[in-house]
Amino acid sequence: MATSLLSRQLVLSLQQNLRLTAPGCRYVSKAAAKTQVEFEYDGPSMKTEVPGPRSKELTKQLGEIQNVGAINFFCNYEESRGNYLVDVDGNRMLDVYTQISSIPIGYNHPSLIKVMSNPNNMSAFVNRPALGIMPPENFPEKLAESLLSVAPSGMSRVQTMACGSCSNENAYKAMFIWYRNKERGHNNPSDEDMSSCMINQSPGCPDFSILSFMGGFHGRTMGCLATTHSKAIHKLDVPSFDWPIAPFPKLKYPLEEFTRENAQEEARCLEEVEDLIVQWRQKGRPVAGIVIEPIQAEGGDNHATPDFFKKLRNIARKHGSAFHVDEVQTGGGATGKFWAHEHWGMDDPADIVSFSKKMLTGGYYHKDELQADKAYRIFNTWMGDPENLLEEVTRSGKTLLQGLYQLQDQYPNLLSSARGQGTFCAIDIRDDATRNSILLKARDKGVLLGGCGDRSIRFRPALVFKEYHVHMFLNVFSDVLAEHN
Amino acid sequence: MATSLLSRQLVLSLQQNLRLTAPGCRYVSKAAAKTQVEFEYDGPSMKTEVPGPRSKELTKQLGEIQNVGAINFFCNYEESRGNYLVDVDGNRMLDVYTQISSIPIGYNHPSLIKVMSNPNNMSAFVNRPALGIMPPENFPEKLAESLLSVAPSGMSRVQTMACGSCSNENAYKAMFIWYRNKERGHNNPSDEDMSSCMINQSPGCPDFSILSFMGGFHGRTMGCLATTHSKAIHKLDVPSFDWPIAPFPKLKYPLEEFTRENAQEEARCLEEVEDLIVQWRQKGRPVAGIVIEPIQAEGGDNHATPDFFKKLRNIARKHGSAFHVDEVQTGGGATGKFWAHEHWGMDDPADIVSFSKKMLTGGYYHKDELQADKAYRIFNTWMGDPENLLEEVTRSGKTLLQGLYQLQDQYPNLLSSARGQGTFCAIDIRDDATRNSILLKARDKGVLLGGCGDRSIRFRPALVFKEYHVHMFLNVFSDVLAEHN
Repeated sequence: MATSLLSRQLVLSLQQNLRLTAPGCRYVSKAAAKTQVEFEYDGPSMKTEVPGPRSKELTKQLGEIQNVGAINFFCNYEESRGNYLVDVDGNRMLDVYTQISSIPIGYNHPSLIKVMSNPNNMSAFVNRPALGIMPPENFPEKLAESLLSVAPSGMSRVQTMACGSCSNENAYKAMFIWYRNKERGHNNPSDEDMSSCMINQSPGCPDFSILSFMGGFHGRTMGCLATTHSKAIHKLDVPSFDWPIAPFPKLKYPLEEFTRENAQEEARCLEEVEDLIVQWRQKGRPVAGIVIEPIQAEGGDNHATPDFFKKLRNIARKHGSAFHVDEVQTGGGATGKFWAHEHWGMDDPADIVSFSKKMLTGGYYHKDELQADKAYRIFNTWMGDPENLLEEVTRSGKTLLQGLYQLQDQYPNLLSSARGQGTFCAIDIRDDATRNSILLKARDKGVLLGGCGDRSIRFRPALVFKEYHVHMFLNVFSDVLAEHN
Repeated sequence: MATSLLSRQLVLSLQQNLRLTAPGCRYVSKAAAKTQVEFEYDGPSMKTEVPGPRSKELTKQLGEIQNVGAINFFCNYEESRGNYLVDVDGNRMLDVYTQISSIPIGYNHPSLIKVMSNPNNMSAFVNRPALGIMPPENFPEKLAESLLSVAPSGMSRVQTMACGSCSNENAYKAMFIWYRNKERGHNNPSDEDMSSCMINQSPGCPDFSILSFMGGFHGRTMGCLATTHSKAIHKLDVPSFDWPIAPFPKLKYPLEEFTRENAQEEARCLEEVEDLIVQWRQKGRPVAGIVIEPIQAEGGDNHATPDFFKKLRNIARKHGSAFHVDEVQTGGGATGKFWAHEHWGMDDPADIVSFSKKMLTGGYYHKDELQADKAYRIFNTWMGDPENLLEEVTRSGKTLLQGLYQLQDQYPNLLSSARGQGTFCAIDIRDDATRNSILLKARDKGVLLGGCGDRSIRFRPALVFKEYHVHMFLNVFSDVLAEHN
């Protein structure tokens, strides 16, 4: 394996693929200097179109078992390394999408393999402990060392879960229970509560609601889905709850150039939030909690200012609703801070913060008073202190955003609204068709990108995505844009 | 490690713990003959009360991070083997509960460790593929070799999921989508469908329902929870859907001695099911699907006859509702057949069959017309043909049930309603307090049991639970019963 990693041939193929010697009108990024991570490849290497013949064959096979409408291509995860995803046709692509933002430190990172190979950790997979009743000896210590060492401000409790949807579903349940106990003034349900809940009726199953935002994505199980409003196809034909949905600010980028208009737009949305809370209380469906992403990710990488979030948090407090920040996609370092909400600079940013994806386990942090009811299963592993990685993310992110700004100036008819925190960046493309063409052309040149919203491209590289990876990406992206101008 | 497994000392301690030489009035089971599985221990060995001092200390620590109300004790999973769970105080217990029925072939089974140690499999954990878009090369082949090789009759498609709740949630969504397309007569949603679903409103989010049964358990996320009716504490304070709930037959055991009364009870429940379907259709909340467990597990190990399930399946067909059999707890071999519904002897037992737990991955099988929309993540592993294990399960199960019948005759004031399929057995205890005392006393003697329903004990051993383990259990159980008579 090691022999295939840094061979002369790869360097040659890298030069060929990136056409480093053929500038033209293309964006010339700073030299892609190699402070090469040892276990990684040197660059992309494309052998066939994507999907290649082997991927097509496998898609046909899988089509007899499952719906394959969403399949892009098949991968060789064993051969993938760091920022490079290798497919079954031998194409090696720089991966700026990382399994919808789920690969924290690159493919097959030696330290993760080490963690997973440790027999003590393997036991968690082989034996699937029911953590809520019979946890392993090192569980409290592991939680303290790992998840609690990065707990959001004001939170000392964490509940682990198996995936992002389960994390949010259970966070909602914790908010409902908390709200109802607050309403009761004590924790002792009446006999009527106990009997009515068994048949799905009030007062045992109260008509509470969660306020969410248009464009938000919080998962696909039925509770989460009632707060997800990014794409109709996620929700179509599934019964839902009559819960309030507020507008998320539609801001102009870069934010600092449109402060006045953006502030007006945010004020409009906050006013609507308060109106909805009052309306739903009057309807008999009080808002037990507000759920929001720090950056609406699936919905198009929509940002809002720290001022907006501070005021929203205060509205929640004023009306007695819990404030739930969903960091399933933003958490874990990609914004340059461990949690995206740290950019707001608040001591008391939330009552609940949910996570998954990059954290390699699902769950939620919560304030003491939102102590939940029951424990659950866990995908159990954590990989230590990410401090240095965060500095890298900040540096790479800055370079990436600068590059996007520069390209946006160069191609004003093609690009707009470059935006980001850390490497959690996005840019809008003229239209959906052009975006899709760009995604495919970039892939043919060995760079793997993902879309979000109607016409955005989102950047979700691993935490080991360094400045020279950024330059490599910008060079390819620039070539692709030139073809679309 | 190996030296600690079969030492003379363990045999001595086994004899001490089981008091094999002190009969009295106790049930004397056939000699616990040893066709010892090599990797296993010889018997229980208790060093302290349970929870012991170390477990108590750890529970206190964890209590500062999470609710620990449900914690029994802390485990040493590394030292656990086969049917024996070792706790952090060095107590070794015969485990007849197996993490709520989730350990298919015992703790640290060498063949599972081998599977997990295989670098090709490890890659699935290290790299967390987004299977719906970028599956690994061997994914179709693995599905065909593993999950599809044990597909229920009439089903050739499987959708994998991360856990049992997600499996059921997504199965419900598949039924809603199928039902709505049937209603439309085509697959093309209108503009009104697309826009109304984004704000949780009909017709895009239609007022469909799922019919479930009182006493059923299908999970804790909000869609599943609306069909779960086993314990109030699972549902309390969480908003729910107005969906119909039918009575599950309350039968007398052994079933073959009460055929007439049981048939009447089943007829009553089936009539109620049809009434509810008609009522809910009239309310404008048509029943898109019926969900049921082949044995109500969490709700008290309640059985029904094959005749009941056949008729229920026909009612679903007659009214155009999908029929969903939830085998999350019953699937994987514990009833002596791979799927519990095979006991019904039907060619077309269901439209959807969901699974998890013992299968080590979640998911659901479905008929072609219930093809779902999107893929999801997966905990990916399967461990080959379980044929011989099923024979063992049938043999051990028969011995277990015979033993329970014998004890029931011996202690008619204490025990009733022994019942089971394969090793998936249960028995009722006089009352809740006595049951709990029996569970604790058995644990002190090194046998780990779990409860279900109001006053039942459920048996959920691993598939490697052999006849001599049954005898070992019966001897301890008999001693404990003698203390309660």
